[in-house]
Amino acid sequence: MTTRRTMIAGAAAAAAGLVAAPAIAQGLVEWRMVTAWPKDLPGAGVGAQRLADRIGVLTEGKLLVRLYPVGELVPGQENMDAVTNGKVEMAHGTAAYDLARSPAFAFFSAVPFGLTAGELNAWVYDGGGQALWNELAARFGIRAFLAGNTGAQFGGWFTREISGVADLKGLRFRIPGLAGQALSKLGVVQLLMPGGEIVGKLRAGELDAAEFMGPVNDAPFGFQDVAKFCYWPGFQDPCMAFQLQINRERFEALPKAQQAAVEAACAEENIRSLAQYNARTPAVLADFVAKGVQFRQFPAEVFQAFGKAVGEVMTDAVEGGDDLVRRIAGSYFGFRDRTLLWTRLGEQGFANMRLLPYDFPRGT
Amino acid sequence: MTTRRTMIAGAAAAAAGLVAAPAIAQGLVEWRMVTAWPKDLPGAGVGAQRLADRIGVLTEGKLLVRLYPVGELVPGQENMDAVTNGKVEMAHGTAAYDLARSPAFAFFSAVPFGLTAGELNAWVYDGGGQALWNELAARFGIRAFLAGNTGAQFGGWFTREISGVADLKGLRFRIPGLAGQALSKLGVVQLLMPGGEIVGKLRAGELDAAEFMGPVNDAPFGFQDVAKFCYWPGFQDPCMAFQLQINRERFEALPKAQQAAVEAACAEENIRSLAQYNARTPAVLADFVAKGVQFRQFPAEVFQAFGKAVGEVMTDAVEGGDDLVRRIAGSYFGFRDRTLLWTRLGEQGFANMRLLPYDFPRGT
Repeated sequence: MTTRRTMIAGAAAAAAGLVAAPAIAQGLVEWRMVTAWPKDLPGAGVGAQRLADRIGVLTEGKLLVRLYPVGELVPGQENMDAVTNGKVEMAHGTAAYDLARSPAFAFFSAVPFGLTAGELNAWVYDGGGQALWNELAARFGIRAFLAGNTGAQFGGWFTREISGVADLKGLRFRIPGLAGQALSKLGVVQLLMPGGEIVGKLRAGELDAAEFMGPVNDAPFGFQDVAKFCYWPGFQDPCMAFQLQINRERFEALPKAQQAAVEAACAEENIRSLAQYNARTPAVLADFVAKGVQFRQFPAEVFQAFGKAVGEVMTDAVEGGDDLVRRIAGSYFGFRDRTLLWTRLGEQGFANMRLLPYDFPRGT
Repeated sequence: MTTRRTMIAGAAAAAAGLVAAPAIAQGLVEWRMVTAWPKDLPGAGVGAQRLADRIGVLTEGKLLVRLYPVGELVPGQENMDAVTNGKVEMAHGTAAYDLARSPAFAFFSAVPFGLTAGELNAWVYDGGGQALWNELAARFGIRAFLAGNTGAQFGGWFTREISGVADLKGLRFRIPGLAGQALSKLGVVQLLMPGGEIVGKLRAGELDAAEFMGPVNDAPFGFQDVAKFCYWPGFQDPCMAFQLQINRERFEALPKAQQAAVEAACAEENIRSLAQYNARTPAVLADFVAKGVQFRQFPAEVFQAFGKAVGEVMTDAVEGGDDLVRRIAGSYFGFRDRTLLWTRLGEQGFANMRLLPYDFPRGT
């Protein structure tokens, strides 16, 4: 295995710069996966590497995947184009970054007030979502699979409390996407900036609130040191799914076993990624508490105002879209309508009752 | 592929009856997977077949898995022994069936008032659970991986309403496992019988209530026709994980790529199984409603009494166990303690707020 890897690495190194065709030597293939993440970013970045490695192992090294963190091979915003054009074979990221190409990509990443991670998996894997996604991705010469998830997020880090809708007026809030557009309707000043600039602006008083990725990825930036109010729940991202995009023509040219390896590795990464985010969050929250962070719940009237505004923005986006956008939205929202009762009586109902006080064995 | 399969099938057919060693021809291996389910049982049975097929595809047919539904090759209660002894290589079922061998198996299947499916995945994949499971399974010469999940269940089908703890006295309730033992402390008459006998006994008035597997698997039996009160939440099974048990020695003798194929296929099946249960439940619930089923929530005092009794039974089981049982319980309950806040502020908090009334796009 080491020998094969070394040979491939040598071949790749020999081909100076970008090579449009995949490197092939002795029937072995090396594919390039660009990502939307810095190397080793907890959760997303670590997961992308785990996915790349897994495909290599599953294919006995016949399909090796070399990972290029964001910006190393192509600028991040060109990741999807690079897959479409065959400049690279794969991109790991989130469909939320592809909204400029079609608003329908939101349904495969994060929809404010939409589906939780488990519900999204249900829709994509068994509720008709994957077939619609295939149709959408095919327009860009791409296949895409779910390949990770942050799970639930928070509604944002705030330097001051939000007691009602009136407090939103003039609030300088770093919040991207549809949710940010929706909040603008409520008087929020939507500001956009890279994740690395947020803490400085909060500290300098140029920003009142910010929403980034969730506890595991927020903590290393130090949001908890400059904004003491952590608001829940995360209306804007009930979850944030990651995807693996693959050049469609090259994917379809793979032997069936290698196609299956890519698909299975994505599904495995999807469940392991969410498990890792969820397993690591409690310690992060305990650290927040130790540092004096105060958890605050959005008042019901604020949450409802958010929901109404988001609903209007979503409706505009869908009605402004083509037939496929409307079909995808119809499928997603229909699934959402039907699943609400099950979630309420099932997992949500259980979790609520579980919080009642009663004696139960304690752990170590 | 067809040719290889045919050759293998021929070789297997030639070996009359049980063969202790795996059939090997031209470097191809056929393994036997027994299951705890009838062929084509929605969810569990369909999933076991999908898992067996996937392993064959991922290994390019080098590790073919032939599935034997419950009772076909060995009696169901001997599935685990058959894997230990190498009579078969694999068994798909739930660790809840292995409690007689160690109470610690409960932690890898279902614990009343315990972890939901997402939380269990977090503990097993990234919270220390898998390493402890490996230790437990090794005592039986086995490796085990998560390989499916029913997700949330209901608390049971009742022919009469439960308004308080007093109504539990003398209640003839078909409910297996630790939860059933716990209810006995509250005056419930715990009755055990196979799933196929429950509806007849409810109809004959010999049973007042019954808990089986959850909406998707309950519906085909017709519980909804004989017991009009469907109680939620499912305190006894916040989820029910399925597992793939594999003979440890044979697993470790596999090439690394085939070991990875088994492990990845299990993780993929784990997420697809839950997705399928969740995607298919809403239509089942709609049918229940159409048939006049009434959903009832357990009163808080009943839920708390259940929780206290379950806590006592769990404590007895753990304290009566050996060091490994106590370490597994400590890890599980510790994870549970720490994850409650995250679930509450995260996914549960979101789901609760999502039920507030507001305008939102409707689906098709």
